[in-house]
Amino acid sequence: MEHLEPPTWTTPGAPVRSGIPEHGRIPKYYAVKAHVAALIEELGEGGTLPAERDLAVRYEVSRETVRQALRELLLEGRLQRRGRGTVVAGPKLEQPLSLASYTEGVRRQGRRPGRRLVTLDRFAAPPALAAELDLEPGASVWHMERVLLADDERVGLESTYVAEARVPRLDRDFDPDSSFYAYLRERLGIGFGDADERIETVLATPREALLIGTPPALPMLLLHRLSRDTGGRPLERVRTLYRGDRFSFTTRLG
Amino acid sequence: MEHLEPPTWTTPGAPVRSGIPEHGRIPKYYAVKAHVAALIEELGEGGTLPAERDLAVRYEVSRETVRQALRELLLEGRLQRRGRGTVVAGPKLEQPLSLASYTEGVRRQGRRPGRRLVTLDRFAAPPALAAELDLEPGASVWHMERVLLADDERVGLESTYVAEARVPRLDRDFDPDSSFYAYLRERLGIGFGDADERIETVLATPREALLIGTPPALPMLLLHRLSRDTGGRPLERVRTLYRGDRFSFTTRLG
Repeated sequence: MEHLEPPTWTTPGAPVRSGIPEHGRIPKYYAVKAHVAALIEELGEGGTLPAERDLAVRYEVSRETVRQALRELLLEGRLQRRGRGTVVAGPKLEQPLSLASYTEGVRRQGRRPGRRLVTLDRFAAPPALAAELDLEPGASVWHMERVLLADDERVGLESTYVAEARVPRLDRDFDPDSSFYAYLRERLGIGFGDADERIETVLATPREALLIGTPPALPMLLLHRLSRDTGGRPLERVRTLYRGDRFSFTTRLG
Repeated sequence: MEHLEPPTWTTPGAPVRSGIPEHGRIPKYYAVKAHVAALIEELGEGGTLPAERDLAVRYEVSRETVRQALRELLLEGRLQRRGRGTVVAGPKLEQPLSLASYTEGVRRQGRRPGRRLVTLDRFAAPPALAAELDLEPGASVWHMERVLLADDERVGLESTYVAEARVPRLDRDFDPDSSFYAYLRERLGIGFGDADERIETVLATPREALLIGTPPALPMLLLHRLSRDTGGRPLERVRTLYRGDRFSFTTRLG
């Protein structure tokens, strides 16, 4: 098992010493993971990984151990399932944190944005939402839920909450597979002023996993946004869930 | 098992319909999770959860099913282990994305920041790091690795890479349990100009989990930073890992 000692290297951005504790036991699956990570580097994007059983033979471990190593690499977006095989994934999309919409962010990276409507309904704003949107409690609010696509790949799920009074014809003259921000700007003359955003990591719920087509319990990046129009008036509350294995967010701090 | 139907509600910020698919099977553990989530609301921060075996009896499921539900709530930072019990966790820390240091960010939230040195060593910059820091490949670079604390709780792990030529006495006159940014500013007259930052979610490695004291494979928020001084010259490359169950990041977009 000597050859199972994982490689060590010092790359900023990579975990120090490949994540191996200085003292203490190296979990066997983790040693396999480090080796497969090195193999991923060699193969390059789109390269096909050997079958699980072949990796098990190569590293002299059980298939369950190989499976655990691959599961983490899949969750981290370094591998992707393709048909019955497993291939080396491309780099994560880098979405700028900006007032620009999802649509513009994805386009800037040379990918084709898309959205697919899941639900559009109205409900009476509960007190917390009413306070955020500066409405009377019980005021009618739209809830629009859309799956986000990049080149037809499902990458996220977005819930938008906006007062019906501000966009009364949302159900009639908005095409849900288009940019909501472009609609507000071009059809209603509403411009964005600023927004508060909060980012956290959460696990996908079974419903979200089903809608986005991810394994259950995949770590996701969750963005909460409260945006205001150019007059400083609250406009929309948005909850966007991005696949943690496909997205990262960038910002310039000054 | 009728009473295992999970509650449904519409709260922006919460998963739609508690994450239950409209069609398709509700995993049993997930129904338990939704019930425990409601119980968490009732108990409030610091409240003690009933023992696993009592929850198993209450929901008429196996202890393994209860354990799976609790595991996700622990990973999400809604519960915390305390001694042999499980208590309702406080809200995640909200760290502003800004040029300000970790120290200042934590202080602003009324928590006491701390750091504990893990390693401080020098190495010859590999080509990628040299390019980022605008150095000759092979130039000597410090690598300083510190555990981040908030009120003595371990919450993150930070690796700082900086050219030895810029901070030649780092090993002699810098106290690792203090702010590196304050040191640069006050002792060396180096001010920060701007920085590029990238956020993603990754799983903790066994070494990281050991150093931060988290369960292995906890989803973490990973921030990559490349900062420049006021003259626009690259200054440091930082890799900071924050516990995904304890941190969120906020920003104002304009």
